[in-house]
Amino acid sequence: MTHIVVLPGDGIGPEITKSALDILRAALEVTGQEDIYSFSEHWIGGAGIDAVNDPCPQETIEACKKADGILLGAIGGPQWEKAPKTPEMGLLQLRQSLELYANVRPTQVRDELVHLSPLKEEIVKGTDFVMFRELIGGLYFGKPKYYTDEEAFDTMYYSRESIERIVRQGFEMAMKRRKKLASIDKANVLANSKLWRQIVQENSKEYPKVDVEYLYVDAAAMKLIANPRDFDVIVTENLFGDILSDEASMLPGSLGLSPSASYSANGPSLYEPIHGSAPDIAGQDKANPLSMILSVTMMLKESFAEDKLAQWIEEVTFSAIEDGFLPGDLGGTTSTSTLTKEIINRLKKGA
Amino acid sequence: MTHIVVLPGDGIGPEITKSALDILRAALEVTGQEDIYSFSEHWIGGAGIDAVNDPCPQETIEACKKADGILLGAIGGPQWEKAPKTPEMGLLQLRQSLELYANVRPTQVRDELVHLSPLKEEIVKGTDFVMFRELIGGLYFGKPKYYTDEEAFDTMYYSRESIERIVRQGFEMAMKRRKKLASIDKANVLANSKLWRQIVQENSKEYPKVDVEYLYVDAAAMKLIANPRDFDVIVTENLFGDILSDEASMLPGSLGLSPSASYSANGPSLYEPIHGSAPDIAGQDKANPLSMILSVTMMLKESFAEDKLAQWIEEVTFSAIEDGFLPGDLGGTTSTSTLTKEIINRLKKGA
Ligand SMILES: CC(C)[C@H](C(=O)O)[C@@H](O)C(=O)O
Ligand SMILES: CC(C)[C@H](C(=O)O)[C@@H](O)C(=O)O
Repeated sequence: MTHIVVLPGDGIGPEITKSALDILRAALEVTGQEDIYSFSEHWIGGAGIDAVNDPCPQETIEACKKADGILLGAIGGPQWEKAPKTPEMGLLQLRQSLELYANVRPTQVRDELVHLSPLKEEIVKGTDFVMFRELIGGLYFGKPKYYTDEEAFDTMYYSRESIERIVRQGFEMAMKRRKKLASIDKANVLANSKLWRQIVQENSKEYPKVDVEYLYVDAAAMKLIANPRDFDVIVTENLFGDILSDEASMLPGSLGLSPSASYSANGPSLYEPIHGSAPDIAGQDKANPLSMILSVTMMLKESFAEDKLAQWIEEVTFSAIEDGFLPGDLGGTTSTSTLTKEIINRLKKGA
Repeated sequence: MTHIVVLPGDGIGPEITKSALDILRAALEVTGQEDIYSFSEHWIGGAGIDAVNDPCPQETIEACKKADGILLGAIGGPQWEKAPKTPEMGLLQLRQSLELYANVRPTQVRDELVHLSPLKEEIVKGTDFVMFRELIGGLYFGKPKYYTDEEAFDTMYYSRESIERIVRQGFEMAMKRRKKLASIDKANVLANSKLWRQIVQENSKEYPKVDVEYLYVDAAAMKLIANPRDFDVIVTENLFGDILSDEASMLPGSLGLSPSASYSANGPSLYEPIHGSAPDIAGQDKANPLSMILSVTMMLKESFAEDKLAQWIEEVTFSAIEDGFLPGDLGGTTSTSTLTKEIINRLKKGA
């Protein structure tokens, strides 16, 4: 029995999670696998604050640790911004508790949706890269970290080990792809980046087939728009990854299209859309569930080696999109529930 | 007598500096102001390392302190990357010694060059904003800052005073423009950003007419591509500004079009192109001098209140561009010297 912990969270999180799980369950029914998977829902984010006064309850952490895979919807919203422990702090605690050190975001510009991109087609068409962002180090967690009325301190800290494990993930992925790794740092200014660059250089000796490019973060921010097709695998530290992966997420034209995975050293992986909780459209049956559906298929592939099942769900999903069932962010008016039903019908027919 | 210190620097720095100064001198001759300005050249960057073994000689700092305005070409190149004190370290020392705390970069997408942008015309046309980047604080200069083979530390530090002075510059500029200020931070994670946001909120009370938007740096990296026209004035700390201003610099389609200014509390301001030293095309009479010409006209306006003179030089320069005298980065083959001569001829004719 494979157990999936589901953390719907806030805003549109619950709606898109429901959509993606309904689709997954329908697909499993068709393939006769419905008894292999079990699901349980737990609190995270603002929903956790409202229910049990904690955006990351211990009970949720324990459930995640025992899971085979974790699905997260989205967290946050204006009503919890002044909470003593915000939804965002809950998310950071979850990442740290589960040691989710590697955040992986594929950026793929699909030909049929290239017109949605803010970039010109001749620049962005065919873009296909994966970003590895270190997720539990750097300025996010380093101590001291405090401020008074007069001054503020944050600490950027990395150990060799925490750099090495993410860098090696990047090299491994590059070996499976076009064998190009872009390591992004600010080695002309930061001590952390000097150590980072040194470690990439050392490890590159074990991957002689991988072509390594060293880029400063400011140059990378330019190249992502000027020549995104040239990237294959990108590896970088936490804050740079936060900024650059969000920049990259614009390339396909909508945030509603991109899933992400976070890997831990030993425990289960967590899958989630890259976008936020979009409180402005929550509860209106308007949200685009695609990034959540793709988070589910990413989980099927990465955690359960169900490549065929995942590919089938993706093909059917995009067939609906190509036939014009477009949510608002893709230029249409199809509701979450209509798109979900359409995909489920197609899955059942295609059986 | 107005004295301008000229720091040509490395790579294409000397060529574009020469071009811009030849143009300035020709314009001053036409207007009969050639005796008002004097110039002296000093070492900076790799050129300083080669000549006097220091990328930021004390003599240069002293000369800058006495100047009325400072022009910098560009610094850096592969031959100095392993120097004990790199050109980049020299530049950082110059910024700190002269207390250049505010780096100002206008981003303007000119209608006649909008086709050069990697962004679609309907997204980028009409973009016109100014970014204020704090230049001598944060992770660049905070201590401790060191690394061993096993770990690395950098410190992000800001005092209230150093935040307040740049924030107020941003508000003042917003008052002169469309009265919109975007303050960019990462207040959901960083102590520095919490203090920053608090100070922006406090100061906003003195500028009730300015509409303030608070954006996380990751969201700002998206918005710069998704909706750049919405920005008017942006204010942010040093590293965020480094990344975001380089991202923004792509919008007009070439780095070769954008000047920048750095202001100090009491001393002279420094003007420089936003691009680097481009060692690959140095010495080949290929470099686009526009960003240096615009740095000169920015100096004329900001430091010497010579708005008319500046505007005339800009108009004549862009008339040559519109008539097809295009350097390589703008899609043509016009050499640095040909473009320079053409602009000088037009200045003389237009007298
Ligand atoms: C919500 C926030 C703390 C988080 C981060 O900065 O990591 C988010 O931006 C993300 O990228 O997942
Ligand atoms: C050369 C480097 C140290 C510098 C910086 O990071 O400030 C540069 O990127 C810039 O933006 O002027």
